[in-house]
Amino acid sequence: MKEKELINEFFIPFHGLSLPKDVYKGIGDDAAVVSVGGELLAVSVDTMTEGVHFYSGIDPDDLGYRSIATAISDMAAMCATPRYVTLSLSIQSIEKNWMEKFIEGVKACIAQCDCYLVGGDTVKGALSIGVQVIGICGSKPIYRSGAKENDLVAVTGFLGGAKTALQFLGRSGEPSPDIKYVLGRYHRPSPRIQLAKKLNKYMNSAIDISDGLVTDIGEIASQSKKKINLIKESVPIDPKISALVTKDTATENALAGGDDYEIAFTFNSEHLDKIDKIGREANIPITVIGTVEKGHGVSVLSESGGVFNHYALQGFDHFKSRA
Amino acid sequence: MKEKELINEFFIPFHGLSLPKDVYKGIGDDAAVVSVGGELLAVSVDTMTEGVHFYSGIDPDDLGYRSIATAISDMAAMCATPRYVTLSLSIQSIEKNWMEKFIEGVKACIAQCDCYLVGGDTVKGALSIGVQVIGICGSKPIYRSGAKENDLVAVTGFLGGAKTALQFLGRSGEPSPDIKYVLGRYHRPSPRIQLAKKLNKYMNSAIDISDGLVTDIGEIASQSKKKINLIKESVPIDPKISALVTKDTATENALAGGDDYEIAFTFNSEHLDKIDKIGREANIPITVIGTVEKGHGVSVLSESGGVFNHYALQGFDHFKSRA
Repeated sequence: MKEKELINEFFIPFHGLSLPKDVYKGIGDDAAVVSVGGELLAVSVDTMTEGVHFYSGIDPDDLGYRSIATAISDMAAMCATPRYVTLSLSIQSIEKNWMEKFIEGVKACIAQCDCYLVGGDTVKGALSIGVQVIGICGSKPIYRSGAKENDLVAVTGFLGGAKTALQFLGRSGEPSPDIKYVLGRYHRPSPRIQLAKKLNKYMNSAIDISDGLVTDIGEIASQSKKKINLIKESVPIDPKISALVTKDTATENALAGGDDYEIAFTFNSEHLDKIDKIGREANIPITVIGTVEKGHGVSVLSESGGVFNHYALQGFDHFKSRA
Repeated sequence: MKEKELINEFFIPFHGLSLPKDVYKGIGDDAAVVSVGGELLAVSVDTMTEGVHFYSGIDPDDLGYRSIATAISDMAAMCATPRYVTLSLSIQSIEKNWMEKFIEGVKACIAQCDCYLVGGDTVKGALSIGVQVIGICGSKPIYRSGAKENDLVAVTGFLGGAKTALQFLGRSGEPSPDIKYVLGRYHRPSPRIQLAKKLNKYMNSAIDISDGLVTDIGEIASQSKKKINLIKESVPIDPKISALVTKDTATENALAGGDDYEIAFTFNSEHLDKIDKIGREANIPITVIGTVEKGHGVSVLSESGGVFNHYALQGFDHFKSRA
């Protein structure tokens, strides 16, 4: 059984049909949305375990940074402002030097994202980090389910860097600038909080790219009950990976790699100019990569007419070992 | 290094001296307290790992119930009303039958406590359950640090049942009624949410009994910068354990055992009658077990005059193996 089936079979039915009116969004999005005291709060939790979400021997400061950044990215996907973070650390034994570096990474990301660590717990066990984030939504939280027919699909930044980094993890010696760059994409992703807030009013649906572009876009298609066509040649492959992998691998890393923590979103085409302007002002490329239509599923189309649906099968599932 | 030293050394300094004004309480209490939209929210997280917080072979429905109940108990300690729960499940492989029973236990406790499961995640790894709870505080959240000189110390319910259960865990065959009772105390603790809310306005400090009465009372003493004297003979030893263990073991289980998830609290003695009445109306005993004075630490005194300070050394530390 895959993680998604697990969630569909056991957790989604949990709600039944009767969520209370203060719960705007329950299980199944990047975060839940609840109404408290006139504010909408986004609430998310992410757990990272050794050997699944990070490799043994990762620098503890990178681990601390990455654990917080990937959790906070869920807030960007909801267009929420992250505010309160709690941390659960499971660890076999406490080494002072390791802990100091880990905390340094946590602190760096928390400060970078203008959040506060308000609580946590530590337990003895296999190395694992759980991060819960509470954020304040703008007036319009963005869900995976909001894509509309004829929307355009866009993505922030460049894709494929983090996946390309995997082959260079844990190597000794000074990396080349390109390798250093992709390692940074993997270890220290940048949650697109500020950019998402600027795009908020134009978005109809959004998700962050954690499991792979096609898989994550598939979530928007599925929850919005629409079909999404992606144009392979439009996907913004990270230019810095071109010297590190073949062209085919670069394309695959961008389409199916995951871990880039960019935001994919859909919007009405009338807002294209405004969205383009926001990207230019933020100095972060925003690229239109597809369209929303009637139907279901995701197709990856080529400008030359081919269909590359096999990408849809290659997203990251936590209960399969990573290839 | 012990868990408490870890928190003191690495996490408490995290805040520095400059918490923003919306964070009323940061790391170090049963929950953080933050102000959102005119409401005070209590936020807590608890992680339970196999072999440390529960035994291999525990019935999955008991595991589900206990994981939620122990996390929700933190809300009782703050006098908050639990509302939104998220669940992080780390598990090696998904067995449908196990999952169904686990979810049943989760559901039962969530419903019992009038909460909603709003999100969660599942990862592959050693069996471990993280539960995050967000609750709504009354007008007066209660902290560990609020004990005042001359306060009385009281505890809800009876103590020692959960610890006594440990020797009967995993046994086959139908247990006797007394054993069944203590197993219930261990597997399905009752977070004292409603009772704590009624006691709220009279409380000066509070904590839930998870690591052991003396250890937990020690947290109130330490954070309040006071000394607490407990009277050994006043501690409400669970009457149902008298037939299961010796008198000395019963006393030790009540004083140092933990896992009962009752609430220990301090209050001004002028409120004694009102507190007594609340307990009688709720049909839950509330017992005065000690006093707060100048100084520091916890002493366990005997009515006959002896001092039993060795109990103070026997609380549960997650990074030591349980005796």
